[in-house]
Amino acid sequence: MIIVKVGGGEGINLEAVCRDAAELLGQGEQLVLVHGGSHRTNQVAEALGHPPQFVTSPSGYTSRLTDRRTIGIFEMVYCGEINKGIVERLQALGVDAVGLSGVDGGLWSGPRKDAIRVVENGRQRIVRDNYTGRVEQVNTSLLKILLGGGFLPVLTPPAISFEGEAINVDGDRAAAATAAALGADRLVVLSNVPGVLRSFPDESSLIPRISAAELNQVAEDAAGGRMRIKLLAAGEALAAGVPQVLIGDARCENPIRETLNGSGTLIQ
Amino acid sequence: MIIVKVGGGEGINLEAVCRDAAELLGQGEQLVLVHGGSHRTNQVAEALGHPPQFVTSPSGYTSRLTDRRTIGIFEMVYCGEINKGIVERLQALGVDAVGLSGVDGGLWSGPRKDAIRVVENGRQRIVRDNYTGRVEQVNTSLLKILLGGGFLPVLTPPAISFEGEAINVDGDRAAAATAAALGADRLVVLSNVPGVLRSFPDESSLIPRISAAELNQVAEDAAGGRMRIKLLAAGEALAAGVPQVLIGDARCENPIRETLNGSGTLIQ
Repeated sequence: MIIVKVGGGEGINLEAVCRDAAELLGQGEQLVLVHGGSHRTNQVAEALGHPPQFVTSPSGYTSRLTDRRTIGIFEMVYCGEINKGIVERLQALGVDAVGLSGVDGGLWSGPRKDAIRVVENGRQRIVRDNYTGRVEQVNTSLLKILLGGGFLPVLTPPAISFEGEAINVDGDRAAAATAAALGADRLVVLSNVPGVLRSFPDESSLIPRISAAELNQVAEDAAGGRMRIKLLAAGEALAAGVPQVLIGDARCENPIRETLNGSGTLIQ
Repeated sequence: MIIVKVGGGEGINLEAVCRDAAELLGQGEQLVLVHGGSHRTNQVAEALGHPPQFVTSPSGYTSRLTDRRTIGIFEMVYCGEINKGIVERLQALGVDAVGLSGVDGGLWSGPRKDAIRVVENGRQRIVRDNYTGRVEQVNTSLLKILLGGGFLPVLTPPAISFEGEAINVDGDRAAAATAAALGADRLVVLSNVPGVLRSFPDESSLIPRISAAELNQVAEDAAGGRMRIKLLAAGEALAAGVPQVLIGDARCENPIRETLNGSGTLIQ
């Protein structure tokens, strides 16, 4: 089984990801798709008069400031427009896709961080009214009955907190948790760069292979853009027993298959 | 089994519908929830600069003009904000809800009407780029595996056309088709009026009972507001073997149970 995460950045070819997924399913491969939607969420939040805000944690990770109103906008884009758009494309290709958020069936659950520490101009402060968290549990029973019924699950944040609130979680890490929980053979993480770059954004500086032992050092040295959290997710997947993580480009014609064939970064 | 449709009009108490559903499930009743979202879709479409337009068919039914951009906004609200909001509320109440659109798993499929005839100022014209249609098939296998797994399905338009396009369908008629396909005992249709009113919007003119034989006449005489299409849906459910349709008020504290206890209109 392969878990494919496709990001929500600019330039991503969702049509090609869907065609590629349909092709792989036709060859008998078992898949679960996970997607993001951050670029489009920024646009819609702007249009609805609630512009996006981003914060940086003391450990250097950037994330969306998610108040209650943002969760609603986030759900509109991730679970509404993008999720149903992907499911529609797949259905038109003859794939019986079923789109779910992490809230549905308590698919992805974990603790909510209602107060977070952020760094602004070198000083730390606490932000409240925060609906973010982390996936700690994956409800595999729902996924297994769907896979057993011949459906392709198409998953998206938000997740649900242990108290029953929708929470924004990182999609790459949610995909890693899903791969681990389902005992997947491979986790494929696609975005709008060719893979892990030694000197971001220089696309000729692609690192083709990273061992688990090198992962932390690469994350320190080479992780520009949104790559640092993908490497964190990759490390979590490997630590939880997923044999291979492949990081590749979703802007080409066969994004999943090219990445499986080694065009991106292989981490094992 | 009871299929509960709750509308998307102003004043509807979704929180109460969810509490009531949780209570009934706790008593061992089997449920499927279907919801709308038209009022909120109008607001979001307005805010996004693509204001809603409504058209009237030659037979007198009013419906949303649904071009491709409207389908995207429709999905944001129905499948995103509202569907996930309901699922979140139910999860917080301990109900293992799973939200799906009619696109997911090809749950609701039927023919798309890409060109429709509308009446404007007494004259007919043809509107194209139209993504509406009608539910002809209900994929009960997906619903049955979810119900068998102990999940509460929470369903919403759009449906999917036989060609694989998302199409806006009437939620009441989709609920009727679902009730028929699942062999439900009762279809409960909740909105922001007390039931079928002899003189809409006079709420004291509630008609407590309508026989199948009287249905067409009542639809001609008494069907102000959005009631006419609900009576069409009720007739379709009865004709397809659903024994009872109850039309009730979703603005009160126990909307489902009060309607089941006879506070609205019973059609059989």
